[in-house]
Amino acid sequence: MTTIALDAMGGDNGVSAAVRAAAAVSLAQETGVLLVGDREAIDAELRKTRYDASYLSVHHASQAIGMAESPKAALEANPDASLLVGARLVSEGAADALVSAGNTGAAILACARHFNVLPGVPRTALAAVVPTERRRGPHDDPFSLLLDVGATLDASADALVAFAHMGSAYAARISRNARPRVALLSNGEEPYKGPKAVIEAHARLKADPHINFIGNVEGVDLPRGKADVVVTAGFTGNVVLKMLEGISETVLDMARAANRSKLAWKAGLFMLRGGILQLKNVTDWQQYGGAPILGFDHLFIKAHGRSGQRAIQNALKVASKASRSNLCAEIAQTLRAQTPAPEAGPSGGGEPA
Amino acid sequence: MTTIALDAMGGDNGVSAAVRAAAAVSLAQETGVLLVGDREAIDAELRKTRYDASYLSVHHASQAIGMAESPKAALEANPDASLLVGARLVSEGAADALVSAGNTGAAILACARHFNVLPGVPRTALAAVVPTERRRGPHDDPFSLLLDVGATLDASADALVAFAHMGSAYAARISRNARPRVALLSNGEEPYKGPKAVIEAHARLKADPHINFIGNVEGVDLPRGKADVVVTAGFTGNVVLKMLEGISETVLDMARAANRSKLAWKAGLFMLRGGILQLKNVTDWQQYGGAPILGFDHLFIKAHGRSGQRAIQNALKVASKASRSNLCAEIAQTLRAQTPAPEAGPSGGGEPA
Repeated sequence: MTTIALDAMGGDNGVSAAVRAAAAVSLAQETGVLLVGDREAIDAELRKTRYDASYLSVHHASQAIGMAESPKAALEANPDASLLVGARLVSEGAADALVSAGNTGAAILACARHFNVLPGVPRTALAAVVPTERRRGPHDDPFSLLLDVGATLDASADALVAFAHMGSAYAARISRNARPRVALLSNGEEPYKGPKAVIEAHARLKADPHINFIGNVEGVDLPRGKADVVVTAGFTGNVVLKMLEGISETVLDMARAANRSKLAWKAGLFMLRGGILQLKNVTDWQQYGGAPILGFDHLFIKAHGRSGQRAIQNALKVASKASRSNLCAEIAQTLRAQTPAPEAGPSGGGEPA
Repeated sequence: MTTIALDAMGGDNGVSAAVRAAAAVSLAQETGVLLVGDREAIDAELRKTRYDASYLSVHHASQAIGMAESPKAALEANPDASLLVGARLVSEGAADALVSAGNTGAAILACARHFNVLPGVPRTALAAVVPTERRRGPHDDPFSLLLDVGATLDASADALVAFAHMGSAYAARISRNARPRVALLSNGEEPYKGPKAVIEAHARLKADPHINFIGNVEGVDLPRGKADVVVTAGFTGNVVLKMLEGISETVLDMARAANRSKLAWKAGLFMLRGGILQLKNVTDWQQYGGAPILGFDHLFIKAHGRSGQRAIQNALKVASKASRSNLCAEIAQTLRAQTPAPEAGPSGGGEPA
């Protein structure tokens, strides 16, 4: 049985959302969930809910890390934090992957402490699912994968090439999209456009038979969904992700402001309210099961801090799917097939941005 | 009289749009326009239009640079190109500023060849006007200034600080916004977030009494308009600009797709069509008179390649306004008031991205 460790103490909605998500998943009798956190609080929530005890267990952790705490200091001050204990349990084989809606920076550090970076990975990456106009795969998925979105700020050509392989492997398994279209984000489509690392990565990916590389894409191609996997360094990825997260709301606000004066426009907006809600759903990445941290020997899925029960359930499902398809082993094998010059210095997860 | 040199051969709409814009401006009898380009073609267009000959003159240039040409090679092959001749005429004092709707990379190189970089400017910058939800200034301007958007790919702390001063000076003069709010684009609001150059620039701008520095902003704050001037390195600025340019269309396409099934939604969109057109206007930066190249002793305004007569007219107006308020001299004075450690190596305009 595939078992997913779930940090019960992370996220804005606390123990209650995590326990209800775990209980719901247990009832499907497919994936086991190992809840990590304050046993008393977890048990109190479990008493309110139906669940299948043969698919749900609890591991006590006496401490927790707040959403706003400084990652490094918080981990040092809380050695028995649910996030750290969860990562340790996965590394010891008690579970196959870890899910948390908690502090992103602390999550990346917890992985770096207990997981191993895969050989051939110069940098681990935090990937995000971003909404797109174009749909893809058998499920018409309206999103693509953007990485890195902030695990580290900059990236060498080696790191960008590794991101491309990791993102491609993840998209192939999670979206069941056999040949995901992979692109580099740059300031022009021409192969000579962009920082040195992007130009070099472009040349290497173009010559790489294991990647369906479609070249450089520009900013405008992201919401359009020209590529299934978009590769960039963490700083730009983070700026772009945060822009995408808020943009639909802003554009609709602007439309509303432009329309203030006309009665017909007011009526039109009223008639559209259902559509606007639906648009919000499309652009709400919570429903896609969170952001994977890629490059370690175990998978971590970071659910959004605001995740409710459904979002955490989706994150558990994605983690289970990835584990069953041996995502990390596949990534390791793909990267072994590569022979890039390793970067100077020890490889590692790096500091969270 | 303030005179603006206008490259008559640049842009997708050719001589006709440039000549008609120059003719219209001449009739206002406020700003002189010096049309630079093929005299025969210009004269042919002038014969079709009303204009005031005391506010309009022509300088012949026998060559021109295409929109898609490689900037460096094109300038070398066309020493008598209208863009180069225009820049030379401005440097010689025949005109106060230069406007072109032509090749952006070639424009930056032409400035670098004929203009001088102001003392204290480590890097010149290409600034763009981006639409925002928030309005500002006496004219309720619905846009902010983003720089650098691609004159150079990366930027040192010195360069970012200089961008902040140049952008602030420009916004104060063009938007008549006496204390523009200036921000650094980063991956978090905290002063310790971002690449090293951003962290250092943050500390220096915070201590700077000449700048209304509001701290770091994130991607989502750009369309909202939290800052009036947003400072970033050219690579990220370019990616973000291209995303903003296309995003409203994409979001509306997504709304339409979400609405396909419902009759009420169809009707709602139909009633909104006027509002959508108006939204397109708000997000269409052509109307704001183009993108200034800042940091030289003369101003260059790059109008959008697709500019028609009205957009070029607006660019001429902005160039005239900036010249009359002595923008470049003001920037030079502001930067002299600074005492940053000069960067290693000669300062210069750099290569276009």
